[in-house]
Amino acid sequence: MAAAPEDLTVAEVRLTPVLVADPPLLNIQGVHQPYTPRLIIEVVTAGGATGLGETYGDTEYLGPARLLADALVGRRVTDLNGLPALADRVCGDSPDATDAGTVHAVATSGTVDAVATVDAAGLRGARTAGKLRRSVLSGFEVACLDAWGRATGLPVHALLGGRVRDRVEYSAYLFYRWAAHPGDRGEPDDWGAALDPAGIVAQARRFADRHGFTSFKLKGGVFPPDREIAAIRALAAAFPGQPLRLDPNGAWTVETSLRVADELRDVLEYLEDPASGTDRMARVAARAPVPLATNMCVTAFEEIPEAFARGAVQVVLSDHHYWGGLRSTRELAALCRTFGVGLSMHSNTHLGISLAAMTQVAATVPNLDFACDTHYPWQTEDVLTERLTFRDGHLDVGDAPGLGVTLDRDRLAALHRRWLADDGTHRSRDDAAAMRRADPGWTAPAVPRW
Amino acid sequence: MAAAPEDLTVAEVRLTPVLVADPPLLNIQGVHQPYTPRLIIEVVTAGGATGLGETYGDTEYLGPARLLADALVGRRVTDLNGLPALADRVCGDSPDATDAGTVHAVATSGTVDAVATVDAAGLRGARTAGKLRRSVLSGFEVACLDAWGRATGLPVHALLGGRVRDRVEYSAYLFYRWAAHPGDRGEPDDWGAALDPAGIVAQARRFADRHGFTSFKLKGGVFPPDREIAAIRALAAAFPGQPLRLDPNGAWTVETSLRVADELRDVLEYLEDPASGTDRMARVAARAPVPLATNMCVTAFEEIPEAFARGAVQVVLSDHHYWGGLRSTRELAALCRTFGVGLSMHSNTHLGISLAAMTQVAATVPNLDFACDTHYPWQTEDVLTERLTFRDGHLDVGDAPGLGVTLDRDRLAALHRRWLADDGTHRSRDDAAAMRRADPGWTAPAVPRW
Repeated sequence: MAAAPEDLTVAEVRLTPVLVADPPLLNIQGVHQPYTPRLIIEVVTAGGATGLGETYGDTEYLGPARLLADALVGRRVTDLNGLPALADRVCGDSPDATDAGTVHAVATSGTVDAVATVDAAGLRGARTAGKLRRSVLSGFEVACLDAWGRATGLPVHALLGGRVRDRVEYSAYLFYRWAAHPGDRGEPDDWGAALDPAGIVAQARRFADRHGFTSFKLKGGVFPPDREIAAIRALAAAFPGQPLRLDPNGAWTVETSLRVADELRDVLEYLEDPASGTDRMARVAARAPVPLATNMCVTAFEEIPEAFARGAVQVVLSDHHYWGGLRSTRELAALCRTFGVGLSMHSNTHLGISLAAMTQVAATVPNLDFACDTHYPWQTEDVLTERLTFRDGHLDVGDAPGLGVTLDRDRLAALHRRWLADDGTHRSRDDAAAMRRADPGWTAPAVPRW
Repeated sequence: MAAAPEDLTVAEVRLTPVLVADPPLLNIQGVHQPYTPRLIIEVVTAGGATGLGETYGDTEYLGPARLLADALVGRRVTDLNGLPALADRVCGDSPDATDAGTVHAVATSGTVDAVATVDAAGLRGARTAGKLRRSVLSGFEVACLDAWGRATGLPVHALLGGRVRDRVEYSAYLFYRWAAHPGDRGEPDDWGAALDPAGIVAQARRFADRHGFTSFKLKGGVFPPDREIAAIRALAAAFPGQPLRLDPNGAWTVETSLRVADELRDVLEYLEDPASGTDRMARVAARAPVPLATNMCVTAFEEIPEAFARGAVQVVLSDHHYWGGLRSTRELAALCRTFGVGLSMHSNTHLGISLAAMTQVAATVPNLDFACDTHYPWQTEDVLTERLTFRDGHLDVGDAPGLGVTLDRDRLAALHRRWLADDGTHRSRDDAAAMRRADPGWTAPAVPRW
């Protein structure tokens, strides 16, 4: 009955960068590029179990990932508490991890507002080399848990202490978007443009019909606030009583944030990152009539004390990539539970491995207070043999070993070939560069923009 | 290689209350009784693995334990996240758990000082029915982890994400004590009395020689502060440069606490629970020249926000019995890490099962900042085939499956027979009652006492 512990030793780690189709979705930064990089991680044990993980595939993540992959061989997949120190040690001197061009130094003492430009990095919150390493190691932690689960016949949620719910609720993630990428690049789809309230409502209707979502988040920060207020009002009229959220990625001043919060107080479940930085968020939260959520203001443990003390956020949108894995996500959940701060989950462009990982950990957290974000329906490509399927806005949490998903090697190979063939344009996500194909004078706007 | 998940289903839970010999150790409450109740928990899986757990055995814990034991049958030993809700559900109406005579209602808003009497319960911090349930379920969580580890060949530390150190450091736990219990009850020992500085230094020397401990904690609150200051001074002279701690169990006023802290500022590693309640602790901490540690002021997650916000404690002495198990202890560690609060571990009268559990979790926590307390050397009796052995003040953390300890059924049976034969005198710990055998007029002193 007992697996010999040496069976759980890591024998090999395979890293495969891929490019994944992404629709022309708009945000404050610009527009999603036609292809987004992701990194697929396979951890193979001496006993023959293969675990899957996924994380950001941007170029600056690949160097640290390679170093960590090499360091993992010979360790056990159960040896997870040592991963952060291992990552710090082996990646600490990685040129990629400290390249000033890709990783911004951030002042630490309440001066997050000094980071005035929101770029692709900024959409993931203020960035540091430590955060980058945590994002890298999150993919390895998930792969280790998957391998461990496959080796012992247990689902990942059991390795996290067991599920407390048998399905996880997700929310529709609405975007202003163009019908096609500039120059008709990328993969076509049939969604059409959504640039006004009617377009957003139509998009929401399609999401609701297809996946059963009953709550809706609109990515804002694209148009002046009154246009986005109108879109939320249109959603409220079309879906009366259903939870709505608006996320302008920190685009607004404190005054604008308060005005929007007040105008939408009767329909918003929460307002997400209306302003940028802990200080502005705290000033909004002090007077806003709706809770504030974030996946920018609080994205790492070191940002929690000030933000919680100042009451800057009422809901943390966890992302296991940011926080260093599924077990760290559970620690974040314990922090939120202790301080009476709500918890839900963030999602951006990712594949089914990460969605399965999100779902496994979400199933284990008692204080999951809101439907999780999911960007997954926008990803028509995947590396799995079978896509994850939403039913009534939920994903089921089964008891299959590990993450319960299977890698499709042909699909993986095809998406990797795309990465190999790329001239570098898409190997690091850059929404501003994508926007410049439509508007050559575009630069990432300073925030607050409005 | 994979254990069939049904192998991990709980088939049976055995509960065995025992009485364990305890020396005549003194504290503010009185004196330890000759025998202390503990509860030994055995969780047996369908696959035949038996896991061991241990918790308080006082009468008011036994009713909830029986209810939880019955509810555990048919669940999997991996299903741990659901235990708190299960315990709340099945024990919530337990008369034992809500008996006003044994579980004190505590006001919640900064009025901990209102609990002016420190009794046996008070030594474990302010008590609520929820805390009692967490102490009960901690023993079941440990037993489930032990069973899971035995079934899959993994040590408990691996199930907690792996050890980050291969040995855990412990501190000598010094007590003022009598040579024998009043009326020569209980089991004799050869330690003799320790009631003055010379006696405490001799006790420390014996601990250091026998177990290799290099740091020392003195249980205070027994004599007026100047006598205890003199004992610490004597220890500092006998063991120059070695870490010292003093714990009067909340006996002092703010002013006395500050005076002792100031007088011992050059030799104390930390001062433990000098005053009672978050408000007094915060007032001491604001001006004390040494860090304050606690296992009374912060003993549950709900006590953290106020205590951390006010800077009332600089070191939390975790106890997995208080906090609901090993996984909750790791969550506490994450909270301490996030807020820059130190972490170590508390210990009171317990057997080798709980010491093994402490050691397993301690091995997994990166931010274990100080040598852990251990009361174990005072316990000459155990239910294990082999006692845990300190070397150079440390316990080794091996890779044996589960907790790595083996139950001795004959010893368990003997200690259970003692419990069966008891007339009720020792079935709930009552240090004040024990003291009344020496001093019939003794009542638990109100705090602050000095």
